Amino acid sequence: MSPYAGPVQDLIDELGRLPGIGPKSAQRIAFHLLKLPTPDAQRLATAITEAKARVAFCQRCFNVCEGELCDICADPRRDGNLLCVVEEARDLVAVEKTGEFKGRYHVLQGAISPIEGIGPEQLRIKELLVRLDPEGVQEVIVCTNPNIEGEATAMYLARLLDPLGCRVTRLASGLPVGGDLEYADELTLGRAIEGRRTLDAS
Amino acid sequence: MSPYAGPVQDLIDELGRLPGIGPKSAQRIAFHLLKLPTPDAQRLATAITEAKARVAFCQRCFNVCEGELCDICADPRRDGNLLCVVEEARDLVAVEKTGEFKGRYHVLQGAISPIEGIGPEQLRIKELLVRLDPEGVQEVIVCTNPNIEGEATAMYLARLLDPLGCRVTRLASGLPVGGDLEYADELTLGRAIEGRRTLDAS
Repeated sequence: MSPYAGPVQDLIDELGRLPGIGPKSAQRIAFHLLKLPTPDAQRLATAITEAKARVAFCQRCFNVCEGELCDICADPRRDGNLLCVVEEARDLVAVEKTGEFKGRYHVLQGAISPIEGIGPEQLRIKELLVRLDPEGVQEVIVCTNPNIEGEATAMYLARLLDPLGCRVTRLASGLPVGGDLEYADELTLGRAIEGRRTLDAS
Repeated sequence: MSPYAGPVQDLIDELGRLPGIGPKSAQRIAFHLLKLPTPDAQRLATAITEAKARVAFCQRCFNVCEGELCDICADPRRDGNLLCVVEEARDLVAVEKTGEFKGRYHVLQGAISPIEGIGPEQLRIKELLVRLDPEGVQEVIVCTNPNIEGEATAMYLARLLDPLGCRVTRLASGLPVGGDLEYADELTLGRAIEGRRTLDAS
């Protein structure tokens, strides 16, 4: 039996479903929220509701955005020849922060991971393929994470895109192997973009 | 300038205010919520709203509860002679789980911490004092945390309650059950030696 009254336990349960929040953290956060003045706690609830109501995914690149197209896709000054493929919108933000990339993006919304049962068909790969010709993409820079899932996704994309006459490049080493793209500092990530290599699909 | 659209940044900011959630975790959780189906994310928002609307603090012991009195204060079978003073409601739950304590509780809602600017007047100490006589409390077990703030709070309570003819006890410090002597820190081991008990060989 749960030791807490219904609504308290409900709150702990919901918090515990968030990534990186264990049962103890969920409990700590729940009591923190209960002790907060109601308007302060309510701001978080409202932020969730608002974000879910107003934020959608860009129809073209699947970045988070408020309208149909995100700011980057809607910006005519971005170089349509270059397409940077990332796993998540937060990776896009990490690449943007380097200031090294002037092309457009495509957010896969994940990476191939047999362990988690995520195959290519769950990712936005179909949507990537239909963009290449109309947008005149010359080069796809695969900016997936330098870990197993990211590398597998990169290889899959290389094999898929190579026959289409599209140059496929991968971020240079310089990123610590086994790390997460979002935690890389701007300089390292910038260097990695500068030194990108052609992926050999043979 | 924030790299995210307004509602996304608002959500990240609000999540970042939670205890133990840094900026990177806040970002990760925000994108997790954005990717969730809306009803799933909305459940968290609703849980916060519900908890704030329905959960209050017990008028007597300041445990979290749904009505005026918590289940423990409302239970006539609990021993009114014994009062266990804890810092937070989650500590009360930890003590309850032991099944060793049959008395009542008093939740201070914090501990004395000059660094954080928390003095005795911010805690539920006045409310503790007015309970002692009417409830016929014989012994107050101070179950604050065994850290600087908790010890300071315990000392303060001992000085306050001693002249009132109330027995004030403190949880025993010592080695955790199942622990290894060689991994115990000096302070804990010192306390364990200090508080050694005669073994009854009968």
